[in-house]
Amino acid sequence: MSDAAYVAVDWGTTSFRLWLISQSGEVLGERRSNEGMTTAMQTGFPQVLASHLSALSAPSGLPVIICGMAGARQGWVEAGYVDVPANLAQVLDGAVRVMGETSDVRILPGLAQRAADKPDVMRGEETQLLGALSADYRSGEQLVCMPGTHSKWVNVANLEVTGFSTFMTGELFDVISKHSILSHAVADAGSFTGDSEAFRTAVSQSYSNPQMATNHLFTVRSGQLLHGLSATDAKAKLSGTMIGLEIAGAHSAASKMAQVVLIASGSLGALYEAAFNALSIDFVTIDADEAVRRGLVAAANAIWH
Amino acid sequence: MSDAAYVAVDWGTTSFRLWLISQSGEVLGERRSNEGMTTAMQTGFPQVLASHLSALSAPSGLPVIICGMAGARQGWVEAGYVDVPANLAQVLDGAVRVMGETSDVRILPGLAQRAADKPDVMRGEETQLLGALSADYRSGEQLVCMPGTHSKWVNVANLEVTGFSTFMTGELFDVISKHSILSHAVADAGSFTGDSEAFRTAVSQSYSNPQMATNHLFTVRSGQLLHGLSATDAKAKLSGTMIGLEIAGAHSAASKMAQVVLIASGSLGALYEAAFNALSIDFVTIDADEAVRRGLVAAANAIWH
Repeated sequence: MSDAAYVAVDWGTTSFRLWLISQSGEVLGERRSNEGMTTAMQTGFPQVLASHLSALSAPSGLPVIICGMAGARQGWVEAGYVDVPANLAQVLDGAVRVMGETSDVRILPGLAQRAADKPDVMRGEETQLLGALSADYRSGEQLVCMPGTHSKWVNVANLEVTGFSTFMTGELFDVISKHSILSHAVADAGSFTGDSEAFRTAVSQSYSNPQMATNHLFTVRSGQLLHGLSATDAKAKLSGTMIGLEIAGAHSAASKMAQVVLIASGSLGALYEAAFNALSIDFVTIDADEAVRRGLVAAANAIWH
Repeated sequence: MSDAAYVAVDWGTTSFRLWLISQSGEVLGERRSNEGMTTAMQTGFPQVLASHLSALSAPSGLPVIICGMAGARQGWVEAGYVDVPANLAQVLDGAVRVMGETSDVRILPGLAQRAADKPDVMRGEETQLLGALSADYRSGEQLVCMPGTHSKWVNVANLEVTGFSTFMTGELFDVISKHSILSHAVADAGSFTGDSEAFRTAVSQSYSNPQMATNHLFTVRSGQLLHGLSATDAKAKLSGTMIGLEIAGAHSAASKMAQVVLIASGSLGALYEAAFNALSIDFVTIDADEAVRRGLVAAANAIWH
């Protein structure tokens, strides 16, 4: 690993991903674990980082660039927020150096929207945005969807973030599945995909009538009582209702000129693609893992050019 | 208690209420406990009933009329459903006798809406409706709101239920308060009333933009991070968001000719009154406890006249 030039880390609430990168931006090694902020608050951020670098036999003293919750108040070192509207390049300028480390460790700031009626924050997604958009979307308007526990929808124009909104879709799906009366309806559910008719119908109904969302959720239960809805269809319907509601909120408020860009990976990305197709919304997909790595590489290049 | 003519019981999922009633409909004694269906499934329905009758020194052999979850499949004896559209008098005809009891014990059926796209059920609320409407609302259209864990909104015309919708408002408020990231925001919250500006603003925002519901929920968190929103205001905002979303769904679909009738009691009733006032929706309130007792009395009179 003697070609290694620096280390890039995406440090989320519950996930940790690290890449060893060469001067030319090539990936020399990779580590993934669940040692997110929540774990690292207990075991120590420097210790988690050191253990993964050691596992890759990385040379000592490499500079490290980090994005995500490691920069939160309860993280390693608070990296603050850049206020929107902001050009994505401003994020690079706001990196905070971790003092007391022998190597040059920097944490990127998040973005904050301080408007009184729509306060919002993100950490990590700004780096995904940078990586996803800076190569192919330097101009024009984009409406960027980054689905997850707290889905982010971001309005971008010429690489400037003009505003964004967080929707609690993934967390609400999880909490309702586990702790509400619907937990009985989805118990023993199998896996489903975006091909599920129950999923697609729920997306469309929720998008068309978002005001009925908490009634649509109850019909997951009553549909099982009266119509024998299967557990798998119940889960698909719950998922589709939450995703359709999110898209109704995010898409209805957006400029119709904006290109919808989905930054996602894996099965969750496939569900959103199916949802957009069910709603006849044009979109392009960018891989989320690749986007955040490219964003970290761009930050490293800017800082240590 | 020798004047007692019969016993009336409202047997919910988590609550039990019993009244000893005279021939003329006068209340001679009352019992309340948390021995709802969930508890009675363990300890036995006949045992729970007997213990409360004994506590009131009720004469043995009195007939008993019951509404609510005691008639569910997992209750004492399944009392089925009357399908809507249905006249409320049909509920009285559907009472099921509990076999094997020495006294005449009858359980009223619920209502079911079997339409493929909006399956729905209620148990207990049909008896509240009967008690609330049969005296003063024998004609005309009403849109009846019965708030709670699973709020019911019922379209009634000339005492016929033409349709209804359940909204999971109370349960979602509870689950989100306890199990989501917002649990931190509402921890240590004090009590609030319908006078709360945070509550009224959230009701209006959610009613006007229901598609933004899960974003409004996130601003409970981000409002605390960026604007120092207090825990009490956070809780009021969460409540107002959920109630405003429910009213948007129920009211937007309803006939504008219908009189809105709120059947509720206590602090929850007061919150809905404040919400309707914030939205300039005309309404009348009927006390929920009184309504269900009057409904049970009407049922007893019809069965044992």
